[in-house]
Amino acid sequence: MLNVALLGAGRIGQIHAGNIAGHPQCRLAFVMDVYAPAANALAEKYGAKVADLDTILADSSIDLVAICSATNTHADLIEATARANKAIFCEKPVDLSLQRVQSCLATVREAGVPLMVGFNRRFDPSMAHLQACLRDGEIGETELVTISSRDPGAPPAEYVKVSGGLFRDMTIHDFDMARWLLNEEPVSVYASASALVDPEVKALGDVDTAVVTLTCASGKMAVITNSRRASYGYDQRIEVHGSEGMLQVTNQLESQLVKSVANGVVAQKPQHFFLQRYADAYRNELATLIETLAKGEVLYPGGNDGLQALLLADAALESLKTGKPVAPQSLL
Amino acid sequence: MLNVALLGAGRIGQIHAGNIAGHPQCRLAFVMDVYAPAANALAEKYGAKVADLDTILADSSIDLVAICSATNTHADLIEATARANKAIFCEKPVDLSLQRVQSCLATVREAGVPLMVGFNRRFDPSMAHLQACLRDGEIGETELVTISSRDPGAPPAEYVKVSGGLFRDMTIHDFDMARWLLNEEPVSVYASASALVDPEVKALGDVDTAVVTLTCASGKMAVITNSRRASYGYDQRIEVHGSEGMLQVTNQLESQLVKSVANGVVAQKPQHFFLQRYADAYRNELATLIETLAKGEVLYPGGNDGLQALLLADAALESLKTGKPVAPQSLL
Amino acid sequence: MLNVALLGAGRIGQIHAGNIAGHPQCRLAFVMDVYAPAANALAEKYGAKVADLDTILADSSIDLVAICSATNTHADLIEATARANKAIFCEKPVDLSLQRVQSCLATVREAGVPLMVGFNRRFDPSMAHLQACLRDGEIGETELVTISSRDPGAPPAEYVKVSGGLFRDMTIHDFDMARWLLNEEPVSVYASASALVDPEVKALGDVDTAVVTLTCASGKMAVITNSRRASYGYDQRIEVHGSEGMLQVTNQLESQLVKSVANGVVAQKPQHFFLQRYADAYRNELATLIETLAKGEVLYPGGNDGLQALLLADAALESLKTGKPVAPQSLL
Amino acid sequence: MLNVALLGAGRIGQIHAGNIAGHPQCRLAFVMDVYAPAANALAEKYGAKVADLDTILADSSIDLVAICSATNTHADLIEATARANKAIFCEKPVDLSLQRVQSCLATVREAGVPLMVGFNRRFDPSMAHLQACLRDGEIGETELVTISSRDPGAPPAEYVKVSGGLFRDMTIHDFDMARWLLNEEPVSVYASASALVDPEVKALGDVDTAVVTLTCASGKMAVITNSRRASYGYDQRIEVHGSEGMLQVTNQLESQLVKSVANGVVAQKPQHFFLQRYADAYRNELATLIETLAKGEVLYPGGNDGLQALLLADAALESLKTGKPVAPQSLL
Repeated sequence: MLNVALLGAGRIGQIHAGNIAGHPQCRLAFVMDVYAPAANALAEKYGAKVADLDTILADSSIDLVAICSATNTHADLIEATARANKAIFCEKPVDLSLQRVQSCLATVREAGVPLMVGFNRRFDPSMAHLQACLRDGEIGETELVTISSRDPGAPPAEYVKVSGGLFRDMTIHDFDMARWLLNEEPVSVYASASALVDPEVKALGDVDTAVVTLTCASGKMAVITNSRRASYGYDQRIEVHGSEGMLQVTNQLESQLVKSVANGVVAQKPQHFFLQRYADAYRNELATLIETLAKGEVLYPGGNDGLQALLLADAALESLKTGKPVAPQSLL
Repeated sequence: MLNVALLGAGRIGQIHAGNIAGHPQCRLAFVMDVYAPAANALAEKYGAKVADLDTILADSSIDLVAICSATNTHADLIEATARANKAIFCEKPVDLSLQRVQSCLATVREAGVPLMVGFNRRFDPSMAHLQACLRDGEIGETELVTISSRDPGAPPAEYVKVSGGLFRDMTIHDFDMARWLLNEEPVSVYASASALVDPEVKALGDVDTAVVTLTCASGKMAVITNSRRASYGYDQRIEVHGSEGMLQVTNQLESQLVKSVANGVVAQKPQHFFLQRYADAYRNELATLIETLAKGEVLYPGGNDGLQALLLADAALESLKTGKPVAPQSLL
Repeated sequence: MLNVALLGAGRIGQIHAGNIAGHPQCRLAFVMDVYAPAANALAEKYGAKVADLDTILADSSIDLVAICSATNTHADLIEATARANKAIFCEKPVDLSLQRVQSCLATVREAGVPLMVGFNRRFDPSMAHLQACLRDGEIGETELVTISSRDPGAPPAEYVKVSGGLFRDMTIHDFDMARWLLNEEPVSVYASASALVDPEVKALGDVDTAVVTLTCASGKMAVITNSRRASYGYDQRIEVHGSEGMLQVTNQLESQLVKSVANGVVAQKPQHFFLQRYADAYRNELATLIETLAKGEVLYPGGNDGLQALLLADAALESLKTGKPVAPQSLL
Repeated sequence: MLNVALLGAGRIGQIHAGNIAGHPQCRLAFVMDVYAPAANALAEKYGAKVADLDTILADSSIDLVAICSATNTHADLIEATARANKAIFCEKPVDLSLQRVQSCLATVREAGVPLMVGFNRRFDPSMAHLQACLRDGEIGETELVTISSRDPGAPPAEYVKVSGGLFRDMTIHDFDMARWLLNEEPVSVYASASALVDPEVKALGDVDTAVVTLTCASGKMAVITNSRRASYGYDQRIEVHGSEGMLQVTNQLESQLVKSVANGVVAQKPQHFFLQRYADAYRNELATLIETLAKGEVLYPGGNDGLQALLLADAALESLKTGKPVAPQSLL
């Protein structure tokens, strides 16, 4: 039985809390949140205790710390947990600054603790199925990865301000998927992007609609298209073209109901947003974490995956500023 | 080059006229219709002549007579053409009376002329593909054939009166498909049916919504569902369940356009009605007719197919009247 | 917090145990099973106690008894629980004998305890969505309900022997769906059926492939097709044709992955069997039970739903024996 | 009745010949081809005459000249026809050289004759339906156009050599679609491309796999992905994301047959190649040409559409060479 402390009792922390409580091999022991009522409510619901960081890290019964707090606290909490010699799960991103990510990962390496970064999509059954087919050569050599990722609606300006921008906040998931599916690091990133959805986004210097092209040394490519707004729900599709065929993950719809009426054959919309669409992915992510720790194997995706995805995001941003393709490694 | 005379210049006659004119190995020589303006217009469009029956049958250059006139003229025209020793294509049905069909087919047999009955669906690319898969054993042994057949809207009362009723007019196509796909004659027919669409249909003693179950001696079954009205277009689906899988023909939609909006993912409706849905089938039917005649092989579907389908329709009607399953052969 | 005792720790009992344990408003207190190791394992997993029936029924803290044991124990356990004045959830069927069902339900009525019968499909999100659309008139008046229900593989002969036959064991779910969607009791049942899948089924006097037609006084109809074997997975589709459109629930596939290769565009198979396909339905069923009890409202589907579905099953069996349509009420 | 002369009796010329012969308002009068047997066969099939260019252009009965010959003859034949004062239909491209296209179009302008360039996809029913929806504002403002265009197999090296390269030969159709759907000229083109399919393509200095991003001044974007090889058939999909929804044109499959078996639910492949996929488009293209000429309106797509698509192709090529985005107008 693994004892888990949860840092952060917000939207995503609640998802992980439910999964931890429901998993037969682990137990939610502690909850911490800067907003006390949130910590109390979550702790009560699952029979956990509320505690501060020092208490949690000093408690020798705690095996795993799950970091689901605000992005700007991630790196500090990872380092503190690493020094306390506990396994770490951290929601993406490690940090918005490349330098800070590098120093944080150095601390983790020194401490020798296991670290998983929460790129949940790798654990979605359909995405994982696609990756397994690629790995098994079912469509020959991978040639082009196409990722369509659109949120149902633009976030509030307050969020946009601290998000690190579209590429570091939203596209970063797609960068991770692209790396995972290409199975090769891109050597060039070109981004074209606009603020078409929300004038406030433009005022804040961010973009909400983007096309990013990644090119590998072997000639393999990936193209990512993003929008902060899809009137029809959360649009999450992946397509891989290979030498012997194509694999696609289509949208998961709200139900299997189809209505045929005078104006057409109407299927349901895609599931609303990530909490619905990736509910299974979050469950599988935790299960993999627990199973991998139990086996004593290396966690994945790990710190370097977090770093590489951020490198691609920063390269996209640099490309957008300069109007030219950018080599990600040149930013290190 | 095959010379063809067309009897009947109505809706279905016009379809065949276009196909005859467009086929590189035949020529539309004559058009006949009781309504002179229709005959004239069609003849002019395709460079054919208008003529009466005697002239047509006396013309030794005519190889094939295509009968597309009113149902109650079919049997007489078939017999006259047979006696003139010309090949015959006749739209379904041969006649609404079993006895008349039998006597008519006897005449054709005596004359020894080739006869094709216009069960066009056998020539639809998707339906033909399904049948070929069955024939090749791709889903093992056939166990259950399910046919959904719904018209976009109820016909006018005037038509219903002379149609012979739902089973002889509309279901007859489905009976032919069922026989073709079961590849065995049903020994029992049970029909349940209602007049739900149009009160006038009820007043005329007919039905517009039906479920018909066909059972074979081997235990294989078919179930046909019909409606005279589908608000979403012409619904034409077939499904065959076999020992090793299932084959389905889905609806052909008006276009490949799909619209995703706030209220769902909207595909186009099925193509409107038989003239659109079976345009390819009519073309292939003619091509098969010409090719089979050229090879001197036996035409299919032939007179017996027309007879057997009518037997099933009459059995369904008898079942509806008596409330019991009926053996089709018992009606001969 | 509702205290629940589970009678029966087999396949379906394990499903309910997990859902009870995971629901925030109830607690699994007791497990009983004739096979002690099964009871022990399940009790341990969820922190419950193993007990015998008397102990459970005598324990005043128990609010709800969930009966998931063998079919032939259902009626006795329902009656015992009713006399102990506890709420009852019972897996279908109440019993295989109409007379026994009637006497059992009389006992429940006298005791005045709430009873839910486990027709889980009513709680499947897609099926429930379809029914809500019908209720709201989204396709006008219901005219024809078509239910396709096929198991992935035939059950072992041992099971077939005690199952009560295809209609009482498998089709009974479809009869419940038909009643629910027709929203009117059928007055006539006609069944045609064969043993095509497994010779042993035939030897046991049962069938494995069936077409059942239900007709209502208003003229509305339902047609159910069943097979004990679908090589491509658990086939669970529903289609309702109404005066203004059609509603369909399509199969839920194993994942959203689609592979396009030289031999076609390959989507995944339907989910394997009821435990996968109806996982959400079982969860929603329990949630509805708890919520309805909390509100003090009448549970549904209730004892009469169990009775009516069995009446239809018996009518189908009688129809198969006599070769004629049967009025279900005539069997009471 | 429009009299048409066809220059070029190859694969695409044969398609147009059949459509011309089948259209009620025009007639195939002449066929010309440098390979006499091809011209003779086609002329005989449709009752036309074989003639040389001078005879055709001198014949005052000829209203329209359809140019379907080799690409390097297009510009000369357009100019000769323009000087002979006849309407012109020319397969794409006008020429592979921007300068030659400009001088050729100047000649056409001076002559004042109507010219249609054969961008057939604009006349595909599904693509045209999509564009009409955009025009009518059905998904609000257009934000992102995504075009997937993949050939079933790579062309022979002989063809690649004279094709002008992937962008001028294949992508040019997609550039035309992008311009048509964006309804705004792109100001920037960025291309990333590789030779992954065929080593010979690489040896010839060409590419076979490409991602091209087009950006407009308004911020609207288009992304085109190409491959010379799709093992599953001709892949032709378009997707437009707008402020109020998404429109997609999916692939047209070989038939409506779907097979469910142990390894999945298998739909048919996309139609093999452009002759099958765009058969309707070619027919509609001719019908629009004839109708527009009859009304005396301006033909579309016209010479400037040919020029703009070539500009985008050349910008893509320049981008690929320089590794930077290119402004198309800068190439004029």
